[in-house]
Amino acid sequence: QKVTTLNVESLNEKISSAKPGDTVLVPSGTYEDVIIHFSANGEENAPIVLMAENAGNTIFSGQSQVYISGSHLVLHGLKFENGFSPKGSVISFSSEDGKQKASYTRVTECAIINYSNPDRIKKDSWVTIDGTHNRFDHNYIGTKLNLGTTLIVEIADSLAINNYHSIDSNYFAPKPRMGSNGGETIRVGASSQSLKPSHLTLKNNYFDRCNGEVEAVSIKSSQNAVSGNVFYECEGVLAMRHGNENLVENNYFIGNGVAATGGLRVINAGHTIKHNYFSGIRGKRFFAALAVMNGVPNSPINRYHQVNNVLIDSNIFIDCTQIAFGIGSDNERTAAPINTTFSNNIIYQDDKDWQVEFLDDISGVKFENNVLSDVDVAHSGFSEADLMLAESSEGLDAINGYPQPKLPVQKSETGPHWLDKNQFEKEGSRTGEAFHINQSTKADLASTVANMQTGDTLWIDEAGEYPFEQPIEASKSIHIVAKAGIEHPQFVPGKNFRGRAFIEITDGVDVTIDGISFIGRSAYGDVPFGVSAIAPMLKHYNLTVNNCRFSEFNEGSFAGISAEKGTFADSIKVSNSWFKTISGQGIKLASENDDKGRYNAEFITIENCVFANIMGEAINIYRGGNDESTLGPFATISNCTFANVCNRELGTVVRMIGVQDAEIYNCNFTESGKSGRVILFEDPAWAEISIHDCNVYNSGRIQTFYPSRVQRNSITQKPVSYSNEAINNWQLEETK
Amino acid sequence: QKVTTLNVESLNEKISSAKPGDTVLVPSGTYEDVIIHFSANGEENAPIVLMAENAGNTIFSGQSQVYISGSHLVLHGLKFENGFSPKGSVISFSSEDGKQKASYTRVTECAIINYSNPDRIKKDSWVTIDGTHNRFDHNYIGTKLNLGTTLIVEIADSLAINNYHSIDSNYFAPKPRMGSNGGETIRVGASSQSLKPSHLTLKNNYFDRCNGEVEAVSIKSSQNAVSGNVFYECEGVLAMRHGNENLVENNYFIGNGVAATGGLRVINAGHTIKHNYFSGIRGKRFFAALAVMNGVPNSPINRYHQVNNVLIDSNIFIDCTQIAFGIGSDNERTAAPINTTFSNNIIYQDDKDWQVEFLDDISGVKFENNVLSDVDVAHSGFSEADLMLAESSEGLDAINGYPQPKLPVQKSETGPHWLDKNQFEKEGSRTGEAFHINQSTKADLASTVANMQTGDTLWIDEAGEYPFEQPIEASKSIHIVAKAGIEHPQFVPGKNFRGRAFIEITDGVDVTIDGISFIGRSAYGDVPFGVSAIAPMLKHYNLTVNNCRFSEFNEGSFAGISAEKGTFADSIKVSNSWFKTISGQGIKLASENDDKGRYNAEFITIENCVFANIMGEAINIYRGGNDESTLGPFATISNCTFANVCNRELGTVVRMIGVQDAEIYNCNFTESGKSGRVILFEDPAWAEISIHDCNVYNSGRIQTFYPSRVQRNSITQKPVSYSNEAINNWQLEETK
Ligand SMILES: [Ca+2]
Ligand SMILES: [Ca+2]
Repeated sequence: QKVTTLNVESLNEKISSAKPGDTVLVPSGTYEDVIIHFSANGEENAPIVLMAENAGNTIFSGQSQVYISGSHLVLHGLKFENGFSPKGSVISFSSEDGKQKASYTRVTECAIINYSNPDRIKKDSWVTIDGTHNRFDHNYIGTKLNLGTTLIVEIADSLAINNYHSIDSNYFAPKPRMGSNGGETIRVGASSQSLKPSHLTLKNNYFDRCNGEVEAVSIKSSQNAVSGNVFYECEGVLAMRHGNENLVENNYFIGNGVAATGGLRVINAGHTIKHNYFSGIRGKRFFAALAVMNGVPNSPINRYHQVNNVLIDSNIFIDCTQIAFGIGSDNERTAAPINTTFSNNIIYQDDKDWQVEFLDDISGVKFENNVLSDVDVAHSGFSEADLMLAESSEGLDAINGYPQPKLPVQKSETGPHWLDKNQFEKEGSRTGEAFHINQSTKADLASTVANMQTGDTLWIDEAGEYPFEQPIEASKSIHIVAKAGIEHPQFVPGKNFRGRAFIEITDGVDVTIDGISFIGRSAYGDVPFGVSAIAPMLKHYNLTVNNCRFSEFNEGSFAGISAEKGTFADSIKVSNSWFKTISGQGIKLASENDDKGRYNAEFITIENCVFANIMGEAINIYRGGNDESTLGPFATISNCTFANVCNRELGTVVRMIGVQDAEIYNCNFTESGKSGRVILFEDPAWAEISIHDCNVYNSGRIQTFYPSRVQRNSITQKPVSYSNEAINNWQLEETK
Repeated sequence: QKVTTLNVESLNEKISSAKPGDTVLVPSGTYEDVIIHFSANGEENAPIVLMAENAGNTIFSGQSQVYISGSHLVLHGLKFENGFSPKGSVISFSSEDGKQKASYTRVTECAIINYSNPDRIKKDSWVTIDGTHNRFDHNYIGTKLNLGTTLIVEIADSLAINNYHSIDSNYFAPKPRMGSNGGETIRVGASSQSLKPSHLTLKNNYFDRCNGEVEAVSIKSSQNAVSGNVFYECEGVLAMRHGNENLVENNYFIGNGVAATGGLRVINAGHTIKHNYFSGIRGKRFFAALAVMNGVPNSPINRYHQVNNVLIDSNIFIDCTQIAFGIGSDNERTAAPINTTFSNNIIYQDDKDWQVEFLDDISGVKFENNVLSDVDVAHSGFSEADLMLAESSEGLDAINGYPQPKLPVQKSETGPHWLDKNQFEKEGSRTGEAFHINQSTKADLASTVANMQTGDTLWIDEAGEYPFEQPIEASKSIHIVAKAGIEHPQFVPGKNFRGRAFIEITDGVDVTIDGISFIGRSAYGDVPFGVSAIAPMLKHYNLTVNNCRFSEFNEGSFAGISAEKGTFADSIKVSNSWFKTISGQGIKLASENDDKGRYNAEFITIENCVFANIMGEAINIYRGGNDESTLGPFATISNCTFANVCNRELGTVVRMIGVQDAEIYNCNFTESGKSGRVILFEDPAWAEISIHDCNVYNSGRIQTFYPSRVQRNSITQKPVSYSNEAINNWQLEETK
């Protein structure tokens, strides 16, 4: 890409000498590392305009940013692409020192694309709106992958309350799960100032699969209007998180039956929620189509204020999984909603068993004139009707005889007119080529991998030892596979090995490994991990390990498979593999130790594996803290055998701290966790956890906080018929 | 201090042009940031000598180091003082790149004083001995306070086995508890190479109160001789940690009845242990006078090899707390000692109940001809005798009629002849002056503190608010006290507060706070902590808080009292204080989250305190991991009331993860930990924990791994007679 030089000083000078009514054009071109100080004062009917000569063709990359301060300004048509802001936002409605704010200023027809900090746990925001009476419209906000809300509205001081901003007609591009709090797309205000009036309008925006965390949009201020927005397949909700008297009107939540899609979460007082449309929303609890929450009595400003004096009227819910009052009810959140009305809502359900759920006292909620499809009426104020599903002219689910849905804004009406939003949808995957390594070419292993492309396969064609002098850096999506029918080729540390693992997983790749034996120790030294994800990382990775062997990772901090702090896998699947004779751990996904609700992998599947003679944990998954922003980690462990694992004092064989969704079954624990636990969960009430059909012989406890997680009648204590020698020979018989 | 310039290039040139038999003199003076490359080759009877012109008067400070490589060299009389090495050791027996080693080289009459890295969790070593046939003798090794073994002998490769080094006649100065593994004074070898022969002699050294951790000296190699050393009041042991066939002879372990003083720990095979003397050693388990350990069957090289073929003969034990076989026996360490002989030992005890302890199978130990003072004979091979205690000419405990003790080396015979070792003993404390602040002078608070000296007292003379614009930086040992009889003066955040806490505790101070109310939130903003220890820190601090109030620390990560990661308190005492209306935690000593056995405070006492309306933990102490190197933390919590604390899901009121010694009694828990625990211990078997005489009303569980910790019959569930308003008015009545 050609980079054009921009005379920044001259540009900033032109800006500062501009008079009301002037337009400063930025020529087409790609500019790197430019900081624009758009500091000027226009007049009401004569703004100062800073615009791309040709909208979308003026591109700022590298470490470029713009600070806007003054009044009656317009920023138009700029594109920020392929870079990131090392400090501060990409677009700020304030001067660099934060002291001067912008007012009566518009940012329009701009785009921010591929502009995430490359380290996913570095926290920042792309847009910070400050001051008053600003408009942010028709912009394209591409996928922000690192930590921190994409767009923030600051209502920190007296200059920003009663701000009357408008955020409208923007397109927010698809965003994957963050695996942490801090993945919001928009936040308006903050808890400490949330009782102050904001008067912001959030209107006609299109949120396309914004899945970062539970809050796609988090309102933390008062007297805002949120109307006419489309939430398309968002795994997250519009949250009235803090602040009072917000209007939520005519928003469309279209779940299309996608798992964990969310609707509206209601906290605090005085809101009016009407004429919204919810269809195919699959989320539950904090992700429910409608979650009217319990509060904390005398709540601090940053916890949960009681729902009070809220009107929920004339909304349509079609085939959603949960509408509930009293969500979050527990020993802390004991204040159920009061003075609240739920009226004139229409609720259609396919599932006959379903009804509106009351999770706590609902004497404070008045139900009036709601219509439910043919289920038992849950409560007075609901009448049953034989609702008939139809399709609107736009293809939306509709109900015959009731107000017909009509999207408040089309996707095509949002974002800059010059940008084709579909260009960012995923390309098809490449058909890979095959590369081959055998004993006589093993010295070429690293150089061979360096030449491979996404989709390629590295075949190891012969058995025997492959000494590693440097790691395989899996920076592309590749497959590493042993030839069928040969003994497992053995990866061992070579004489000068420098690296963090035999295979280092880097940003955003999809890696498959099959048929390899990873041996952590040789006469020359140690490799800490067989396979490890390496930080810093921005995009999710996926890892599939099949038919592999891991042994001799012989320090407490070592492991067969591991993930560094700051890495995140969408999925990790390990099957038909052995982990044997390890002083460290088998599979270690436990580096996010800051207890902020962060974790290393979303979906974890471990099946048909054997863990034997391991001193540390066989499987260690950690998600600390009491954050409720995410759904994961999800873990399934089945048909695994654990023999002579983690018998040290207070040791745990399968450690599942804060795992929110897990099933462990058909597993066999023998002579394991004897001074501690075979399975340990720290399991919040809302977690979905099931432990069943396991055999636990001469081993430690199964420990969960809630006893009902364990189907005790399916847990046996049968002796297991093999010797220690058998384990050492990998000959463990199946016992179930 | 006058700093003299040294022409380093010319010095290094002189060294490299030196011929066998030459002596290079370094002039007297203090030199900063000098790196000496003592790389040369002398001859057997003509070494090259690098020496201080006047021993002890050539001082290297700042970031000075010396690398020694070649052969037949002598380094003599240098003093390293007031600095630290940013990377690598202060004295290395190798070249800077590690490729050239030293042999037949002597370092003598040198001293290292006050040379710790200022960040206590930065890990390094002061002396690294590599190569072969080197002697390190008559040196003074001052107190190393940061992490990492003081003196290491590398036996990493073939060039360093059969090294025949001698480490003798050195003086190792007193060293405080580290609160972590990595506080060894000497380590010889490493586990991975421990089966190789070392042939090092460690002789006639004086270890003076070397208390870093459980291993004062850790032998991790084979065929060494440890003889004639004095371990004077060391809270730590001589550990035969890894490696075989070591000789331990004629060492003197003098405990003087000091708590936790240690003796000898035995692991692995083929050792000969004879003619050692143990007196007044008070440690138990890993700190015992004699701990013959259990091993792990088929142990990895870095765990515990079985004790096999060890001879323990003709040692004297006088008034020690524990001599035991099978120490460490658990579900992992199941291999009891075999082929071992314990013979001709003389054991005198004051305590009539005491006997040699057998913690596991002792069929593998042959007991012969041992003499015990008048207790029941534990086993065949012990005879009972009426032993009479006497005093030797050196003042040591002796037994009439048996071999008389005689110190193998006097303290005065160790270290450099030019150094007075007693000059480092603690000075008396200064009698402080009084400084006064009242409402009219409150703007001068920070400047007043800046003028204060160790021992001074800051008196707050009037009630009312004291807005803080900057923290009180407690960089000296001071007292902060409200005048008697006034309402608690209120410390609140001012308009421009920048800091980490109202009171920031820094390196090595002893701070007392009395009668102050810390309010974390004002109209202007928040202060995260009332009092917090600030990293980086090198020396221990002590904190005493009495009659104080902490409220409104209103973020999850905030707390009334806290300690940053990398800080360490010897003692924290909080009494007669309130913690109320806090969204964060009350007392948070939980930042060492790396699960390496590190922790924030050794002795913690909390008494007569009230914790009310707190969302997080009231008290949170964390020591993660399964390290067994330390004894702490020690915690006592008594006569405290907890009302409406931590009712969130899985919340814990008093969280004591890994606390090794604790007593909780006379405490009243009401409406607290309702969705979790009032008390949670993760308590290894060896921990000393007692929970008794508490009242737990409408609250969560008491959870320990071992049920016997809780004296259930003393735990009541009585209703408590006060209202929530009463709590809010600080009017909670006593209920016991
Ligand atoms: Ca959030
Ligand atoms: Ca140690």
